[in-house]
Amino acid sequence: MADDALFEFLHMEMVAHVYKEQASRAETEQERNTCVSVLEGMGFRVGQGLIERITKDAPSFKDDLDIMKFICKDFWINIFKKQIDNLRTNHQGTYVLQDNKFALLTQFSNGKQYLEEAPKYLAFSCGLVRGALSNLGLDSVVTAEVSTMPSCKFQVVIQKT
Amino acid sequence: MADDALFEFLHMEMVAHVYKEQASRAETEQERNTCVSVLEGMGFRVGQGLIERITKDAPSFKDDLDIMKFICKDFWINIFKKQIDNLRTNHQGTYVLQDNKFALLTQFSNGKQYLEEAPKYLAFSCGLVRGALSNLGLDSVVTAEVSTMPSCKFQVVIQKT
Repeated sequence: MADDALFEFLHMEMVAHVYKEQASRAETEQERNTCVSVLEGMGFRVGQGLIERITKDAPSFKDDLDIMKFICKDFWINIFKKQIDNLRTNHQGTYVLQDNKFALLTQFSNGKQYLEEAPKYLAFSCGLVRGALSNLGLDSVVTAEVSTMPSCKFQVVIQKT
Repeated sequence: MADDALFEFLHMEMVAHVYKEQASRAETEQERNTCVSVLEGMGFRVGQGLIERITKDAPSFKDDLDIMKFICKDFWINIFKKQIDNLRTNHQGTYVLQDNKFALLTQFSNGKQYLEEAPKYLAFSCGLVRGALSNLGLDSVVTAEVSTMPSCKFQVVIQKT
């Protein structure tokens, strides 16, 4: 679908731009963290905006798990056109969301070749989740990891206040 | 539709980011042109990618006008969920595409207040059109102007080789 392609292409451009711009300044480990946080910040704000629209007609949530299920289903489908394949929790505020075919990684080869490039393409999506949760009243830390392309795990740790 | 919102929000973030990053360097007229050309360049590459997918099953085009009609209809619908409202040409390689309710301007107030902000939000789309035409074999110069929000005119001048 060319529809999804618009988002995917734009996302690619954005990642490329943020990294290129930083490369033109200085190349240190710290700068690299800046790129990730720039992308994460963009995702955060987009996530906040999207969740507002998506939850407009949704019933209210009864607990954190209920919110996470909504993220895995409605929110994910809206953005990535599929659900999260697996949701796990330790029932103490940590959730692992596994997407076996993550849309923003499917353009890459399955080999190990691009594995180290993958984190660049996950920062925005970590932000999306954190932004959405934030608007639903949950502070969280969201990280992602890839072991085999194009599958991806997002870990969400809810911050108790 | 939250679907379109994803693209609109991401586009907003991108414009904001490109301008903020430049502002942190130096603020001269030249820098401002850089922002426009950064955004235009991103649009160009996204347009190239999209048109390839959209034309995959399309019949071949018989002339430039035929290509422009395709841009006004299929290409525009794919990205902005509506057609161009009016297409004019002088039959000498200049085309004016008018969108009476341009998706990337609808978030703004209709007043004159934001009129000078508008060009920022058009650069990416000018690039989209130029990229699409480029992949269809037409070199062009694409500019945009807004007189009343949220309506917008894109002028395409085909470059003869």
